Amino acid sequence: MSKEITSRESDYSQWYNDLVIKGGLADYSAVRGCMVIKPYGFALWENMRDVLDKMFKDTGHQNAYFPLFVPKSLFEAEEKNAEGFAKECAVVTHYRLKTDPQSKGKLMVDPEAKLEEELVVRPTSEAIIWNTYKGWIQSYRDLPILVNQWANVVRWEMRTRLFLRTAEFLWQEGHTAHATSEEAVEETKKMLDVYADFVENWMALPVIKGVKSENERFAGAVDTYCIEALMQDGKALQAGTSHFLGQNFAKAFDVKFSDRDNKLHYVWATSWGVSTRLIGALVMAHSDDDGLILPPRIAPLQVVIVPIYKGDEQKGMIDNKVNELLPKLKALGIRVKYDDNDNSRPGWKFAEYEMKGVPVRIAIGARDLENNVVEVARRDTKQKMSVSMDAIEFYVKTLLDEIQLHIFNKAKTYRDEHITKADKWDDFVYLLDSKGGFVSAHWDGTAETEEKIKELTKATIRCIPLDGEKENGTCILTGKPSEQRVLFARAY
Amino acid sequence: MSKEITSRESDYSQWYNDLVIKGGLADYSAVRGCMVIKPYGFALWENMRDVLDKMFKDTGHQNAYFPLFVPKSLFEAEEKNAEGFAKECAVVTHYRLKTDPQSKGKLMVDPEAKLEEELVVRPTSEAIIWNTYKGWIQSYRDLPILVNQWANVVRWEMRTRLFLRTAEFLWQEGHTAHATSEEAVEETKKMLDVYADFVENWMALPVIKGVKSENERFAGAVDTYCIEALMQDGKALQAGTSHFLGQNFAKAFDVKFSDRDNKLHYVWATSWGVSTRLIGALVMAHSDDDGLILPPRIAPLQVVIVPIYKGDEQKGMIDNKVNELLPKLKALGIRVKYDDNDNSRPGWKFAEYEMKGVPVRIAIGARDLENNVVEVARRDTKQKMSVSMDAIEFYVKTLLDEIQLHIFNKAKTYRDEHITKADKWDDFVYLLDSKGGFVSAHWDGTAETEEKIKELTKATIRCIPLDGEKENGTCILTGKPSEQRVLFARAY
Ligand SMILES: [Zn+2]
Ligand SMILES: [Zn+2]
Repeated sequence: MSKEITSRESDYSQWYNDLVIKGGLADYSAVRGCMVIKPYGFALWENMRDVLDKMFKDTGHQNAYFPLFVPKSLFEAEEKNAEGFAKECAVVTHYRLKTDPQSKGKLMVDPEAKLEEELVVRPTSEAIIWNTYKGWIQSYRDLPILVNQWANVVRWEMRTRLFLRTAEFLWQEGHTAHATSEEAVEETKKMLDVYADFVENWMALPVIKGVKSENERFAGAVDTYCIEALMQDGKALQAGTSHFLGQNFAKAFDVKFSDRDNKLHYVWATSWGVSTRLIGALVMAHSDDDGLILPPRIAPLQVVIVPIYKGDEQKGMIDNKVNELLPKLKALGIRVKYDDNDNSRPGWKFAEYEMKGVPVRIAIGARDLENNVVEVARRDTKQKMSVSMDAIEFYVKTLLDEIQLHIFNKAKTYRDEHITKADKWDDFVYLLDSKGGFVSAHWDGTAETEEKIKELTKATIRCIPLDGEKENGTCILTGKPSEQRVLFARAY
Repeated sequence: MSKEITSRESDYSQWYNDLVIKGGLADYSAVRGCMVIKPYGFALWENMRDVLDKMFKDTGHQNAYFPLFVPKSLFEAEEKNAEGFAKECAVVTHYRLKTDPQSKGKLMVDPEAKLEEELVVRPTSEAIIWNTYKGWIQSYRDLPILVNQWANVVRWEMRTRLFLRTAEFLWQEGHTAHATSEEAVEETKKMLDVYADFVENWMALPVIKGVKSENERFAGAVDTYCIEALMQDGKALQAGTSHFLGQNFAKAFDVKFSDRDNKLHYVWATSWGVSTRLIGALVMAHSDDDGLILPPRIAPLQVVIVPIYKGDEQKGMIDNKVNELLPKLKALGIRVKYDDNDNSRPGWKFAEYEMKGVPVRIAIGARDLENNVVEVARRDTKQKMSVSMDAIEFYVKTLLDEIQLHIFNKAKTYRDEHITKADKWDDFVYLLDSKGGFVSAHWDGTAETEEKIKELTKATIRCIPLDGEKENGTCILTGKPSEQRVLFARAY
């Protein structure tokens, strides 16, 4: 192996960090809690972003861009939202540096350049956007507004982890405005479906759609819908959220429209977002002790071809064959690279591309040429196959689809096996401590009980599943009556 | 007209603002100096970004992402760069807000959450990136690094203008690292050529390639190459810059590599960027008193079809015809919209799409259907033509190319007519005050003279043209000897 990876069993958390850093996805930076997204990680994010962006546009949304800074007076306008984010705000207070008279070559904040009003670096953009929408909306003819923004946001976190929780992260945030509550709720659910579609069919990660309990709701939302995924260590991860904001922001920013009846009403709102956190989920859900396993549909590189040769003559023959092959693969839309760098040996390259999770590796040696075959290796199962070169491009194309499906099915089997019902408190606790995963249990519906369970077990309600059946039962902690099971888990 | 636009002659500056705001490109925001880029403006930026991004990738670059914040100690490491940007830095000093005990429902900066080291919101990313590259570069095998970043940056400006000068703007910044000076200079020039290619062939804006004088050089650069464009009011606008940074940042951040000879050398650097400022240039260069004129290759919408009818029967027949037409246009890659919104009349729509600079408008009436023709109107020349519906899609496709070329040629003719030689000081001043544009004059090569000329005339040296001929002459101000003319202009 070219680079040591900690195994999942010995230290899951270190395994994750090893994959992210040694796999070339991201790195720590000199700024506390902020990461550098490296080219390979960014190429992955670009693929994810491009698919999502198309989905948003196909559902009628347009992109726009709003300021990075939110003046404090706007930030505090919607009280719950402000309260929810106040403790993690980076705040700009000055607009100039000057030469430090005490220290040659150093700069200091110029005390004379203090802002009259402090600026919050956006942790989310509802405030600045609804303050803008006020100017865009007069009549029902101006509705709906279906806008999305791709942006960086900052939430000051004390304990950070690459991708999963960083002070700055990249995300998209949709912010829509509607004439009716029904239409806004419909939008909220539609975007949840878009997220679920994307995460399942592109990231190969099965999710459960649900609604958050009050405790876990987005600050300022009436309802938070979410998709929840399961990692290999049995912990849950929230992969995306879609919020029905009611008229909270319209009231905070006084955004009204005149309806067909010529009466003024407050506008209804939604917001929804996914972030670079999804990359953390991807890494944790699929990878193994040898490195990343990336789903072909979003992998920056889908196929790598490695030549195995002695001397220039063999190399020349392999080059000729590969030069025939490359355009055929590319014509099928396959992202392929021929790695004939002679600084490193095939074994080193094999380990490197395993580490990076490239779905398919093709090795071609001199004897293969004679036999008109290549060696095809799958990253997910590590299976190796000798395959005829004739129509190899179609074989590879089909194999990529098969790998995508296989990765999804594997994650789904694991996930399904880790949703367990519990009806007694002892079982509940034991399940969380041993098997992990989602524990499906009755809950009396109160914030107090949820809080108490969290204190006792570190598990939270991940969601009230949308497809959950009505079933009479008694709360796992208090024994009070309940009408539906909810999903508990320890979570990232 | 649906919306009043100030004419260029009466108030050029107000004309520009009217176009940006009423054309739906951008709007002022609640944050001093920051703008909201509206969906139509952002769609334009997306088209520009996508073309540039492909050009960067085709020249071997990869995208990555670096932190928004630069710790003050890193920011000040490269002294000239720090000095150049210190006066326009937004500075984060605190990481938390808290409830204001004096004022119900209000928040205040929590004095206990003061950062030990202040964070500068990046005005440009050399410092944070070179601090990162230090960890990426050990050997010549790690070079070159060819990385680009799409990001927001903040430069606190006292006087701002939508797109042209805003406190926050969007841009891309390429940052490359090389083993030799020659290779870095080659990269610097290559990216200047990429910018010139993009601005001329996609934005239809002719540019002059040149080198900046010392006064106008990027803070921390050894050489700044630039492309300069001319606006309709005779003022110049710098459309893009590419910097050869020498070893300045490598030395400031101690970035060395061991070469083939096993000796340690400092790494050579370039950086290059274009920003949303280009949208301002686009608006100013091509538009007229009726609104925007957008080059087809980057226009969000290339063709709009407007039906002209009385009653549902006529509307139905037109719909049928348009539904045949739309897929044919789209199949040729044409961005087209059928605007059959019945809330507004055709005349209003015509003015609206003129305002928005949609290159081609097609009107279809009931009589047109009988005659198998449509009315095609060009935005740039305002020409209207009656065109047979047979193969109309090919007609439109060719017309879009013709419009692209016509817009470029018009701008080029204007630009070429506004490069004037001056050999006497009085002529020089008179030209700047009357005709405007670039004045080509000899200069003694000193910063003092350039400064003096700027004081006297508000004109700066826009560049020393790369294709300028060597020619002996005498400085326009001092009469001292000079070997090449340089281009002076008043500039945005
Ligand atoms: Zn959930
Ligand atoms: Zn220039």
